[in-house]
Amino acid sequence: MELEVLEKEVSKITVSRITDEGKSSVEQTIAREMPLTIMLNNQELVTLLCSPSDLNYLAIGFLFSEGLIRNKADIKKTIVDGKRGIVRVDTENNFELDADILFKRIITSGCGRGASFYSTVDLQNRTKVKSQIKITPQDILALSHEFQNRSQIYKETRCVHSAALCDTKSILIFNEDIGRHNAVDKILGECILNDIWTEERVLITSGRITSEILLKIAHRNIPILISRSVPTDLSIKLANDLGITLIGFVRARRINVYTQDWRIEDGDKQ
Amino acid sequence: MELEVLEKEVSKITVSRITDEGKSSVEQTIAREMPLTIMLNNQELVTLLCSPSDLNYLAIGFLFSEGLIRNKADIKKTIVDGKRGIVRVDTENNFELDADILFKRIITSGCGRGASFYSTVDLQNRTKVKSQIKITPQDILALSHEFQNRSQIYKETRCVHSAALCDTKSILIFNEDIGRHNAVDKILGECILNDIWTEERVLITSGRITSEILLKIAHRNIPILISRSVPTDLSIKLANDLGITLIGFVRARRINVYTQDWRIEDGDKQ
Repeated sequence: MELEVLEKEVSKITVSRITDEGKSSVEQTIAREMPLTIMLNNQELVTLLCSPSDLNYLAIGFLFSEGLIRNKADIKKTIVDGKRGIVRVDTENNFELDADILFKRIITSGCGRGASFYSTVDLQNRTKVKSQIKITPQDILALSHEFQNRSQIYKETRCVHSAALCDTKSILIFNEDIGRHNAVDKILGECILNDIWTEERVLITSGRITSEILLKIAHRNIPILISRSVPTDLSIKLANDLGITLIGFVRARRINVYTQDWRIEDGDKQ
Repeated sequence: MELEVLEKEVSKITVSRITDEGKSSVEQTIAREMPLTIMLNNQELVTLLCSPSDLNYLAIGFLFSEGLIRNKADIKKTIVDGKRGIVRVDTENNFELDADILFKRIITSGCGRGASFYSTVDLQNRTKVKSQIKITPQDILALSHEFQNRSQIYKETRCVHSAALCDTKSILIFNEDIGRHNAVDKILGECILNDIWTEERVLITSGRITSEILLKIAHRNIPILISRSVPTDLSIKLANDLGITLIGFVRARRINVYTQDWRIEDGDKQ
């Protein structure tokens, strides 16, 4: 894999601030945003808007979430050109995407990525997440607290989402992006490229839980999903159907469990 | 135009809430999410995930933002099938989308909608927003306050974004959606369908400002964009190049002006 040095994820600008006392110039740290084009076997696949970091993780995570690669063995070569905003991925079987399939696939998955899975047939073909892992409320609160303190770029800019893969006791990998979906894809891409096991683990996201996020998690057989934010009705239905424990609205001393609450075990009462 | 009665935007569920005192069942209002497929001249164009309301505004706003319709006169017929989640739009010239153009267009505009405008040539062809309208800091704070109090669904669910078109004194139209882009597209679609003038007006969004949002606004020549959230560096650059006054990070008694601050005029000091 060839990697170019990427530019950093934030920059500083001077803005006019207006208050009761009048106008002044202040320096503010803002999140950077770049277009990233993914080329799959020399075909232009998609352009994402993202934070300029870990572009290889993002590209691989995206291809995985879209079902275009299944695992690391499918990847022949990845070339990241951070300056021009291009990631080229060649696959082992070097398939040419059938124009018609690609057309349908990407269109239905564009703004509502994963929408192609909504048909009943597709959902019936998906297997439930079977992991028997359990987690205590105390561990959920501790992980959520650690997660919140981890995001330096959010603290500086208030303009990014974060995601993390954890075991029940600590954060294993963490990433951030201006896009809610991208942050999760970066985590999934890192797991694929670095052979990080996901099946008995926990994913935390800063964002609201909509159906696409839920389907990404299901695709890696991750049994537990945690968010400080809230889920939509469709993500709750999917989580339940796919056997995923969905925990949301996490606050300092409170959690909501939306589905599959048998994975929550009694912790030590304090 | 034929409209079917749509289902409502929220539903109630019972969730397990775990606190220091133990586990209880509570009722929570959650946002509904549905897939909506847009068919343009009998061709499947895209599937969006959205809140189940104002699907006609969303479809028309989306088509406009993507450059596929220019105005109301381009629209021959719109049929909304809320139950099946389909909006069919037929245009006057009944063009068949060229597969190659559509392919490229939708792909580059999928997750990073509007990405096709990033090339220098395209940006050079875009005209600056010329409106000479001005607004006082007091009006900005008052509009932002009214906007925040307006969102009933957000208050109930914490799971939607909102957007509004305003003049400098009050909100003219308001909408909400689980998607940040969708909320803006619903506003633009309503403007097109109901002949609402946008050129000397103000758009408020609850979401962070990324480049796609900025390009949507520019496309309707809206001169002033306000958000409580923050912009990315790319959206600031585009706002400046396109002559749009970008106001962010609005708090109870404070605003940041990122670009084109000549549209901010001194108000009455209190």
